[in-house]
Amino acid sequence: MMRTRPLKVALLGCGVVGSEVARIMTTHADDLTARIGAPVELAGVAVRRPSKVREGIDPALVTTDATALVKRGDIDVVVEVIGGIEPARTLITTAFEHGASVVSANKALLAQDGAALHAAAVEHGRDLYYEAAVAGAIPLIRPLRESLAGDKVNRVLGIVNGTTNFILDKMDTTGAGYQEALDEATALGYAEADPTADVEGFDAAAKAAILAGIAFHTRVRLDDVYREGMTEVTAADFKSAKEMGCTIKLLAICERAADGESVTARVHPAMIPLDHPLASVRGAYNAVFVESDAAGQLMFYGPGAGGAPTASAVLGDLVAVCRNRLGGATGPGDSAYTQLPVSPMGDVVTRYHISLDVADKPGVLAQVATVFAEHGVSIDTVRQSGKDGEASLVVVTHRAADAALTGTVDALRQLDTVRGVASIMRVEGE
Amino acid sequence: MMRTRPLKVALLGCGVVGSEVARIMTTHADDLTARIGAPVELAGVAVRRPSKVREGIDPALVTTDATALVKRGDIDVVVEVIGGIEPARTLITTAFEHGASVVSANKALLAQDGAALHAAAVEHGRDLYYEAAVAGAIPLIRPLRESLAGDKVNRVLGIVNGTTNFILDKMDTTGAGYQEALDEATALGYAEADPTADVEGFDAAAKAAILAGIAFHTRVRLDDVYREGMTEVTAADFKSAKEMGCTIKLLAICERAADGESVTARVHPAMIPLDHPLASVRGAYNAVFVESDAAGQLMFYGPGAGGAPTASAVLGDLVAVCRNRLGGATGPGDSAYTQLPVSPMGDVVTRYHISLDVADKPGVLAQVATVFAEHGVSIDTVRQSGKDGEASLVVVTHRAADAALTGTVDALRQLDTVRGVASIMRVEGE
Repeated sequence: MMRTRPLKVALLGCGVVGSEVARIMTTHADDLTARIGAPVELAGVAVRRPSKVREGIDPALVTTDATALVKRGDIDVVVEVIGGIEPARTLITTAFEHGASVVSANKALLAQDGAALHAAAVEHGRDLYYEAAVAGAIPLIRPLRESLAGDKVNRVLGIVNGTTNFILDKMDTTGAGYQEALDEATALGYAEADPTADVEGFDAAAKAAILAGIAFHTRVRLDDVYREGMTEVTAADFKSAKEMGCTIKLLAICERAADGESVTARVHPAMIPLDHPLASVRGAYNAVFVESDAAGQLMFYGPGAGGAPTASAVLGDLVAVCRNRLGGATGPGDSAYTQLPVSPMGDVVTRYHISLDVADKPGVLAQVATVFAEHGVSIDTVRQSGKDGEASLVVVTHRAADAALTGTVDALRQLDTVRGVASIMRVEGE
Repeated sequence: MMRTRPLKVALLGCGVVGSEVARIMTTHADDLTARIGAPVELAGVAVRRPSKVREGIDPALVTTDATALVKRGDIDVVVEVIGGIEPARTLITTAFEHGASVVSANKALLAQDGAALHAAAVEHGRDLYYEAAVAGAIPLIRPLRESLAGDKVNRVLGIVNGTTNFILDKMDTTGAGYQEALDEATALGYAEADPTADVEGFDAAAKAAILAGIAFHTRVRLDDVYREGMTEVTAADFKSAKEMGCTIKLLAICERAADGESVTARVHPAMIPLDHPLASVRGAYNAVFVESDAAGQLMFYGPGAGGAPTASAVLGDLVAVCRNRLGGATGPGDSAYTQLPVSPMGDVVTRYHISLDVADKPGVLAQVATVFAEHGVSIDTVRQSGKDGEASLVVVTHRAADAALTGTVDALRQLDTVRGVASIMRVEGE
């Protein structure tokens, strides 16, 4: 069974993830050989700073010319862990053109240009695998596109960004405010110097686009994903959540509409009940809940980032792609045959938790309730509390279209008796 | 891309799982066609009672002659959901001999004869997939053998039997005794009339053998798995567990020894800390924790049994096997290249929680502590309580070899001052 010519791997990028990939390829070489059926050899490593000392990597393999590396023609698999759109995109398509399969960890690129990249892979009869692009080490892409290939997925609900989960968990457990929790995340290395991509939900939105596409066998682009960050979540929101028996998580939610004719994808902070399995996901961990017709509720949990965990996912793909090459086959490709439209956020059906500062006088509740009724939004519970002429009103709604809820809030702001809308948060996972 | 000749599927068994497989093949036919790249057709259904009305299944497809069905020669995939050793084993090998690939949900057969069946699949260039054999709908076999193929798994720790988890959860939450909880499980259909296979751990042991084999790329037979049932777990044990900040679960535990040179597999009830993710797995759900070098800690959670969930796993395999056939390839096969020895239970390193009934007089603790010391078992905590000349002593040990712990308990039983050993339970997941 064993052939002796090694499969040649080109590594693009040698940062936190790339260096772990190279390390494991060396230390686990015998295991990889046994599992693939042939040895794998690191044939080149493209980096930006060639002078940096890289332990365990032969300096002769290091190059700054990534393009020449992917064009060599003897490369079986290109592992792309550079990130970002360019030059990653051009390098991947060039790799396909020169006969290589590709393993990528690049969520931004997959979310933006997945369709074109998949088409290029098919055109050249090569594989494009990207387990590491979503939720780090957690096997998620493969279960969705293979294990559940005979099922119908209706919902994907997940914590897919470790930085924001660390911050929210810290706020929840210590009562800290957002800035204080962010500072600690930064100090501990969980947040980057510029945390925008994480805290504004861009990172999670890219993952939501990828997950929705795979789960529903349709095309979901990054622009299709509704996105709200979590920078405005306050300690008071956590207090409200606790009163509801909930906590707050930044969730990526991909849903098939009740009629099955469209899908939605969104990222925003939301209250979820404490007894929901996602509520107990601590620190920088990720977890993704999947609901399907036949399997029911599944959850996948693990480290969502980090060099070694992400490298684990990359290497799992590398083994699969190498096996495919030896067998003269390709793995399951892109599947977007359902071509379902992506509905806007207004069509999403969900619940709201709304805190209002109102005048403390008779008739306010009646006025507020009338506004909800006029917009067709049914109220689940109302809690009033007040002193010194000021009062607060907490309204939790039944499920309604997001557009109706937004319209309700806009109208509430117009009421003289409503001094302000203190907070609005969706309630999920019930 | 689309070819028109359908792939032909023979279904062996049409009970709870088989009827769901047939139903989904019909209702989701268009989706399956799109995902596979060709239509799949139910070409025959082998049953024991042909006269039974089976909604949605063409009576012309039904036969009692399973052997003739798998020998037809035009069958692409045989789906075996009969269970048990024979005739399933002979039917599967006959299927390979006649050119079919096989999808099986048969944990007992895989645990006992997996090696021979895999060898038969390889000999005939066919696939043997069995995601449904372990933990129902939860994608577990595929993540272990594919997603983690580039990683080194050190430990698999799981709740893989829903019946026993339902019973233990009921005991935990209501304070019920074992028999009362079992009766409720039986009444609700979670336990069979003869619950032996579940409550004595035979079912979980078969799954442990399969998981250990895949996780460690070695051969683990059912006889290699140490097994203790959970029929002797008492309400008092749950009380002790709560005092430890723990609950009790029936766990399947597969471990690589610290030196990496051997593995162990075992099934027994154990205390696990309440903050361990497995502690909050409720009702009949299953969950499996996987620890590996690079990925760290992963968990997979979902329904571990039932017709539709198991059918979901079967159909995921069916899609994969059909794709492989269209591509002229086979999926990743059996991998037992490490050939690690399976160590006996005595070599397992774990902790014990021991409750002793002792005479209430001076010197008893010193005597007991001496016995632990003589066997090289270090004590973590001791708690004494007593009245009226009787006393109890609860000892929690540090990690030690199971043989040393067993020897300690045997020696304690010999002490005049030890009236009895009220309970012994291992402590895991810390």
